[in-house]
Amino acid sequence: MGSSVKRLAILGSTGSIGRQTLQVVRSLPSRFRVVALAAGQNTDLLAQQIDEFRPDFAHCQTGPPPARPTAAFQCLSPEEIARRSDVDMVVIATSGKAGLLPTLSAVTAGKDVALANKESLVMAGEIIIRAAKANGARILPVDSEHSAVWQCLRGEEQPAARVILTASGGPFRSFTPDELERVTTDQALNHPSWRMGRKVTIDSATLMNKGLEVIEAHWLFDLPYDRIEVVVHPQSIIHSMVEFADGSLKAQMGYPDMRLPIQYALTYPERLTNEELPRIEWSSVKELTFEQPDPERFPCLVMAIEAGKVGGTQPAVLCAADEAAVDLFLSGGIRFTDIARLVAKVLAEHRTVADPTLEDIIAADGWARQRAHALAGGKDLC
Amino acid sequence: MGSSVKRLAILGSTGSIGRQTLQVVRSLPSRFRVVALAAGQNTDLLAQQIDEFRPDFAHCQTGPPPARPTAAFQCLSPEEIARRSDVDMVVIATSGKAGLLPTLSAVTAGKDVALANKESLVMAGEIIIRAAKANGARILPVDSEHSAVWQCLRGEEQPAARVILTASGGPFRSFTPDELERVTTDQALNHPSWRMGRKVTIDSATLMNKGLEVIEAHWLFDLPYDRIEVVVHPQSIIHSMVEFADGSLKAQMGYPDMRLPIQYALTYPERLTNEELPRIEWSSVKELTFEQPDPERFPCLVMAIEAGKVGGTQPAVLCAADEAAVDLFLSGGIRFTDIARLVAKVLAEHRTVADPTLEDIIAADGWARQRAHALAGGKDLC
Repeated sequence: MGSSVKRLAILGSTGSIGRQTLQVVRSLPSRFRVVALAAGQNTDLLAQQIDEFRPDFAHCQTGPPPARPTAAFQCLSPEEIARRSDVDMVVIATSGKAGLLPTLSAVTAGKDVALANKESLVMAGEIIIRAAKANGARILPVDSEHSAVWQCLRGEEQPAARVILTASGGPFRSFTPDELERVTTDQALNHPSWRMGRKVTIDSATLMNKGLEVIEAHWLFDLPYDRIEVVVHPQSIIHSMVEFADGSLKAQMGYPDMRLPIQYALTYPERLTNEELPRIEWSSVKELTFEQPDPERFPCLVMAIEAGKVGGTQPAVLCAADEAAVDLFLSGGIRFTDIARLVAKVLAEHRTVADPTLEDIIAADGWARQRAHALAGGKDLC
Repeated sequence: MGSSVKRLAILGSTGSIGRQTLQVVRSLPSRFRVVALAAGQNTDLLAQQIDEFRPDFAHCQTGPPPARPTAAFQCLSPEEIARRSDVDMVVIATSGKAGLLPTLSAVTAGKDVALANKESLVMAGEIIIRAAKANGARILPVDSEHSAVWQCLRGEEQPAARVILTASGGPFRSFTPDELERVTTDQALNHPSWRMGRKVTIDSATLMNKGLEVIEAHWLFDLPYDRIEVVVHPQSIIHSMVEFADGSLKAQMGYPDMRLPIQYALTYPERLTNEELPRIEWSSVKELTFEQPDPERFPCLVMAIEAGKVGGTQPAVLCAADEAAVDLFLSGGIRFTDIARLVAKVLAEHRTVADPTLEDIIAADGWARQRAHALAGGKDLC
């Protein structure tokens, strides 16, 4: 195996980002070797992936595969996989809270981490960034917005004066309050520009996702909240922008396709030609439009930024309450607009712990999920 | 004088770019000392500038100033100024052909050259780039489009896969052929988004300017013509874009204000806060639109790119014929649409010299001006 082959552990390999990461690996076969895979429920697809990529390690929730793909094959936990010395880069493609402990394990082991999971930095940004710095780990963002910011900052000697995160605005950006009350799960799962997992698709419809990204940008780029803005850009061509001290602004663009930011993180600092990645045709792009996000229609955005500013255990509670609320909405337990109401109620009840330990954060997470379900089980959320 | 003070020679100091360069110097007084100024006809303004900035050298076309601004003051030619050892950076803000010899003098002396004059690279790109490489001179682009490309390339290890130069499209992008025939000089001098000198404003109205910029980009960024595209973007917010090997695209943006690219070239690699430079307010930018340039309405664009591809003395003839034609249009000698016809006729008559010497280029330039005037003095150009 040549020194230019990067040994990857892909956690969350059966999810949307995990599958697209494997597509990038398939397009650039000489560059990568998949040494570990981990997934949650989708054991059929995991078995297929193990068969195709023949990793040495996998997280086997429902027992080991029928045949050992390699002589060295072992079943390990995601945390064990994330810190192995024979892994060069850990791709955290896990959705939700499940990304937290593997991310912490990987940065503590000084790994390069391609981070697609936003919840881990939102819940425990301070702890993760501190561990990464102490152990020389690099966190390479995979989210299209943070990848855009990272690409715009490339080669610049000074930090960003301002970061402008773009938001598609989701499917409901021009819905009336009444229409929002009657939104169905099918409508909410039908994102106008991106094909993503279910949780992030609902979060994009409430703009909670953009709020989580603001908190993530705060930690990734060491920026105060008053230097992070959100602008709605429905075409999702500009993935985000950075303004510099002199007022000059850079934007990173591309058609909405997660394989580009995934590949950028995987091959950084190189940019490799990949014929499968689309290129913008300027003869077909007629206009890029911009709007301010409406805080009344999308209270989750405001709530998330406020939770980020308060800090402590607030962002973890925000995340947990949102994860519970989105689950409840998807299972028909609450209405779309109840997601924001439920998260707001849980946040209002929470007694924030400043400078929390990992245990404080995990405790706050557990409490918030419980409270969200209890409150949703009660009467009207209005 | 501290080591961080950059000693500037500003050639063309009374023109649009020269005056804006001095504005940047005024905003950042601790960073620069103006050691030399040179201008053409506007001796009153030059005298004021000499009085304010107290340079040690000036190009005094109509005799020395009444009082010596500094004890060391001397009158010198632009070429002499450009190669002086007490000059750190030469700003070539001269318009038209007059920029050629000072640019060559500066790069031969190994200076940093902030280049706003496009004609010098268009006329003699190969000679200038060769001299710059041989003598370790850096050419720092000041044109907003090339500054944008340069900013987008910053920190990237690989060359551009594709450069997309934006064009405002000028005041006539939706004029009919009949309306174009009747364009007045006042209409042509009224650019919708940029305030510039007269020559470049007319060149922007014919899109000749964009054609010259394509040739300039070819030389500055060592790119074949098939990797340089032009897209019309009337808002002039995106100043240009670069696509990389992986399909990712970066754009540099700002309100149309030449002080930003001037300052970037002057302070590179630093970006300095300058409160006078405008910052984009995303609440006021509603849309950025894009169109393909119409080759029938704007034949100068196509002609320029063709001349660039042919190379040799063709681009010099293009420049000279255009400079003559624009002069003729501004003095009422020909119609707006005759500019393209006249340039086409001169180009068609020219016998291209491949691998030209500087003398070949100067001879072609003189011949083209003469032919343009002779043809315009004749009958109908149609």
